Amino acid sequence: MRDIRAIAVLTSGGDSPGMNPAIRGIVRSALNRGIQVYGVQRGFAGLIQNDLELLTSASVSNIVQRGGTLLKSARSLEFRQAEFRQKAAEQLAERGIEALFVIGGDGSLSGAHLFEAETGIPVIGLPGTIDNDIFGTDDTIGFDTAVNTALDAIDKIRDTADSHERHFLVEVMGRNSGFLATHVGIAAGAEMIIVPEHPVDIAALSEQLALNRNSGQGSSGIIVVAEGNEAGLTYRLAEQLKQHGQSPHVCILGHIQRGGIPSGHDRVLASCLGAVSVEYLLAGYSDILVGVQQGEVTDIPLDNLLRYRKGLDPELLRIALQLHR
Amino acid sequence: MRDIRAIAVLTSGGDSPGMNPAIRGIVRSALNRGIQVYGVQRGFAGLIQNDLELLTSASVSNIVQRGGTLLKSARSLEFRQAEFRQKAAEQLAERGIEALFVIGGDGSLSGAHLFEAETGIPVIGLPGTIDNDIFGTDDTIGFDTAVNTALDAIDKIRDTADSHERHFLVEVMGRNSGFLATHVGIAAGAEMIIVPEHPVDIAALSEQLALNRNSGQGSSGIIVVAEGNEAGLTYRLAEQLKQHGQSPHVCILGHIQRGGIPSGHDRVLASCLGAVSVEYLLAGYSDILVGVQQGEVTDIPLDNLLRYRKGLDPELLRIALQLHR
Amino acid sequence: MRDIRAIAVLTSGGDSPGMNPAIRGIVRSALNRGIQVYGVQRGFAGLIQNDLELLTSASVSNIVQRGGTLLKSARSLEFRQAEFRQKAAEQLAERGIEALFVIGGDGSLSGAHLFEAETGIPVIGLPGTIDNDIFGTDDTIGFDTAVNTALDAIDKIRDTADSHERHFLVEVMGRNSGFLATHVGIAAGAEMIIVPEHPVDIAALSEQLALNRNSGQGSSGIIVVAEGNEAGLTYRLAEQLKQHGQSPHVCILGHIQRGGIPSGHDRVLASCLGAVSVEYLLAGYSDILVGVQQGEVTDIPLDNLLRYRKGLDPELLRIALQLHR
Amino acid sequence: MRDIRAIAVLTSGGDSPGMNPAIRGIVRSALNRGIQVYGVQRGFAGLIQNDLELLTSASVSNIVQRGGTLLKSARSLEFRQAEFRQKAAEQLAERGIEALFVIGGDGSLSGAHLFEAETGIPVIGLPGTIDNDIFGTDDTIGFDTAVNTALDAIDKIRDTADSHERHFLVEVMGRNSGFLATHVGIAAGAEMIIVPEHPVDIAALSEQLALNRNSGQGSSGIIVVAEGNEAGLTYRLAEQLKQHGQSPHVCILGHIQRGGIPSGHDRVLASCLGAVSVEYLLAGYSDILVGVQQGEVTDIPLDNLLRYRKGLDPELLRIALQLHR
Repeated sequence: MRDIRAIAVLTSGGDSPGMNPAIRGIVRSALNRGIQVYGVQRGFAGLIQNDLELLTSASVSNIVQRGGTLLKSARSLEFRQAEFRQKAAEQLAERGIEALFVIGGDGSLSGAHLFEAETGIPVIGLPGTIDNDIFGTDDTIGFDTAVNTALDAIDKIRDTADSHERHFLVEVMGRNSGFLATHVGIAAGAEMIIVPEHPVDIAALSEQLALNRNSGQGSSGIIVVAEGNEAGLTYRLAEQLKQHGQSPHVCILGHIQRGGIPSGHDRVLASCLGAVSVEYLLAGYSDILVGVQQGEVTDIPLDNLLRYRKGLDPELLRIALQLHR
Repeated sequence: MRDIRAIAVLTSGGDSPGMNPAIRGIVRSALNRGIQVYGVQRGFAGLIQNDLELLTSASVSNIVQRGGTLLKSARSLEFRQAEFRQKAAEQLAERGIEALFVIGGDGSLSGAHLFEAETGIPVIGLPGTIDNDIFGTDDTIGFDTAVNTALDAIDKIRDTADSHERHFLVEVMGRNSGFLATHVGIAAGAEMIIVPEHPVDIAALSEQLALNRNSGQGSSGIIVVAEGNEAGLTYRLAEQLKQHGQSPHVCILGHIQRGGIPSGHDRVLASCLGAVSVEYLLAGYSDILVGVQQGEVTDIPLDNLLRYRKGLDPELLRIALQLHR
Repeated sequence: MRDIRAIAVLTSGGDSPGMNPAIRGIVRSALNRGIQVYGVQRGFAGLIQNDLELLTSASVSNIVQRGGTLLKSARSLEFRQAEFRQKAAEQLAERGIEALFVIGGDGSLSGAHLFEAETGIPVIGLPGTIDNDIFGTDDTIGFDTAVNTALDAIDKIRDTADSHERHFLVEVMGRNSGFLATHVGIAAGAEMIIVPEHPVDIAALSEQLALNRNSGQGSSGIIVVAEGNEAGLTYRLAEQLKQHGQSPHVCILGHIQRGGIPSGHDRVLASCLGAVSVEYLLAGYSDILVGVQQGEVTDIPLDNLLRYRKGLDPELLRIALQLHR
Repeated sequence: MRDIRAIAVLTSGGDSPGMNPAIRGIVRSALNRGIQVYGVQRGFAGLIQNDLELLTSASVSNIVQRGGTLLKSARSLEFRQAEFRQKAAEQLAERGIEALFVIGGDGSLSGAHLFEAETGIPVIGLPGTIDNDIFGTDDTIGFDTAVNTALDAIDKIRDTADSHERHFLVEVMGRNSGFLATHVGIAAGAEMIIVPEHPVDIAALSEQLALNRNSGQGSSGIIVVAEGNEAGLTYRLAEQLKQHGQSPHVCILGHIQRGGIPSGHDRVLASCLGAVSVEYLLAGYSDILVGVQQGEVTDIPLDNLLRYRKGLDPELLRIALQLHR
């Protein structure tokens, strides 16, 4: 059992719903063990600027249901330079802080791994992103809420799609991965799901829409599109479909997917990962992500995140195909 | 007291939340007086195609809480031609239908006025639009729900705006009018509200944002923008603000504002207008809009809609200015 | 134009959604005119205990969307005694506070009237209650949100009512008045609405339910009941209906109706009343309620609240009867 | 690979959100394989009354987001008698139906097991209950939605609890099990969670509340209570706490927990279980529950449900204890 007197916690990258209960989990779990907790403002930027303050049990009261992150988040260009990482480490040491907890996505966690490798300060990562694209964990804090937010929007769009007998292309977040689009698509009863992992066949898509229209499934419907890497993808798809005789509307959900009251699932997930991550540190672990595999909390070497890429569940895609016909 | 045996009802133009309880109000109120009610599919298009069916009390059970319109809606180019309007009138007469109820916005109600003028079939209009831009009525069916939908989205966006200390330009619907933007802006605690009725002064806007930032109100905030007449307005505003040193994000709310479960206010409004509009018909009125003035249901000649334009409440704008500083 | 340097604001009685934007409206409007604003903690109790602090523009940032009241609320037995009211007045005078703004319901506003009568300190009231039972104003802060909250619950209950083909008696708040029940009942498409203003005829109610059941409107339905003055009313109604062969379930909505994110309507109403109430004070008014009549903000002598009782709108009840058959 | 031409599907027991997408999953998956699907009305009651009709792909369009069950549900006393079960089996055979899909809770699935044992008609069960108390599956259709519904209510109650500095005892469903209470309690940041699996120590509870009050965590808070087996438990707890100097309010969430729009998680779960359950049947399985273990869909012998009882996760309770202090 490691003996730790003080830790620091920060949130980094795009905010995701559930970061607050994750912070609360770390703080309460640490305080219960007599460990001091410093909150770092604005992610790695605040780490460099030495913008930290002690958190109490009351600091994290009444935040479990708040979206965003009370520690704020930001992108830091400086943190990409070794000298600033060194400076940050020295400042932590001066305060007697013996470990750093980082809640964020792929990029932030890779930065955390580098920080420990260079400075020797133990780092524990928690997966905080709505994209659920972090290798080694089946779930991430914010994903479930984002699915529900997108569905809530699509349920509204469907009213108009039905009333006007139109198709809608609805773009959800996901630059490199279709996890969000796949879950949202299945849950929305979408006629099609378009993800970056697979090429789009416009002719086949158009044919399928015509087929559905004739098969008595009505002439309205939702097609869920992951935004992908090139801006404007969904508008281009709509253009191409028009050339095949379809006339879909486009709706880009955008930033509403990042915020909002965290769902029950995300609050429980975040609370548990937060609480247990402190135990991992005390048990001697570091340079790990505390995530979920097969329904159980587990540790994943942060190193893995740099080396592997998480793939879409082929089973889920197979099921999706059976449902929308 | 007019003696009426059968009426028809249709929804036209963009759908709005509350059209269903409005239909229900008309149907139940008419049936209670022994009047038959035909539902017309797809607005004026269905009227021309003679696509009508009798509605029962059960047809409108369990729809009070549904967004969209069970009668569907569409735009009809044919209805702009006198010969098709004549055809529609003849078909109504053949079925013994003695009056037509039209739920829709400005354009649809103008079409209804023309229809009565030409064919002599009595027409009663109900204001169904999220824009609340119909002259002569203080309120329209769907406006309140759209305000709440936009706010729900903005409450989510604010989480990210706060966490990242950024400004967001949020575009709401409103091509010609800033009613939705003004209400949403006040209710969202927006720092700025930009409406088509007033020119935008980018330099002043930028200065104001800088001022707010320095006055301790934090460095995040929401600016609500009505979409206006030229596509891409909000993106251009963002570009211009960038040239003044701001770096706002843009979020276009789009079609989510049209759908959704109607709010309590819209359900009560729609139910009352629906029920009372039948009484207006029986009392001998026609060629009117049944709307709201000073909190009371009243009739407005449809003719007025062609001649006057509803203006923004200057008092509300004045109050908005006091709040966001 | 009165010259005022400092005011105090408090919230009193049961909390209602929109109290926060009302506080914000008063604070921002006053600060814009160079008037200092003190926030009083816990209503009249805090006034007696001299628990006040200065509010800044930032104190009321980011609260427009929060339920409850940041100034907290409480019932104060002491405030019923003249000597404590006198003490409160002296403490206000010592701080140079020249007027008191009270946001609350009937009882709180009556207390405010008494306070001005006895101490000469000008008082301005704002209607803050979900019951909408304050004489002289058509609307109160929190009513619209409470209607929506109750409807949201009933929409869920309806799923079970339909699936199991059962009737549900749903009890909403309203000890002395049926405003909430009437609006909720119309908006929910309820088969019956039971209010304290009218006696219940169980035999007729039971007969009506049987009639609806046979008329093809399905065998499920919602009956909205205002809680009334005697605890357990709804359970007794269910018992009596059982004796007439019905077997309704009972659902008591309870305290969820008081809280929640304020609706757009309530945020706009509260913001406007808050901002304008400061102008009334400066224009020389006091001992008034700033409320709404026929869609316009207006002043009502607080004295009236003690002398008159607000009645249910008979027109609304008449319409309700036409809709649920 | 079994050759099956027709199946029947029913929902039984208390309805739960997600039953509709589960039905849709079974129907679409079966139709895609050329299998006819009969929908049974009102659970086992309709099975006995021979109340079945063929479902098409369009029958299950636009239901993925609806709460309740389109097949309706009911309790059937007759189905407890062997002669009626025999009659139901004969009627299925007459229609050429070769398997029965049952979506429901513990009791319904036990009935299904008995039905196959007696009649030889293959039965496939799907876990549909908000209680998540079915042995052998980590998750049930409706549980996640119920957690979110309860949290939504508690977030509202918290506004009042904070404003009035009071404690609230909030009762959630759960006669025999504390799964719902535990998840809701952790996600709500509750100060206490009371479950049927563990005795309540009123003195300790009261002491803890006093302790929290003094430790700067504020004087308000939420205590989540599973309803348990004896009616009125929560009211008795409140009485007992009063004798220890506390004065908590009571809120019984009741039937709102059963209905509502299913969450994204429940829609995906239900769609997958529905689709895959057809594959289990075709692969030769029967007398099984298709559920989830360690994040993967799997089969559990229905027999097990009669013999074992699912226990609360001790790890989750341990974590809960770390969070609310």
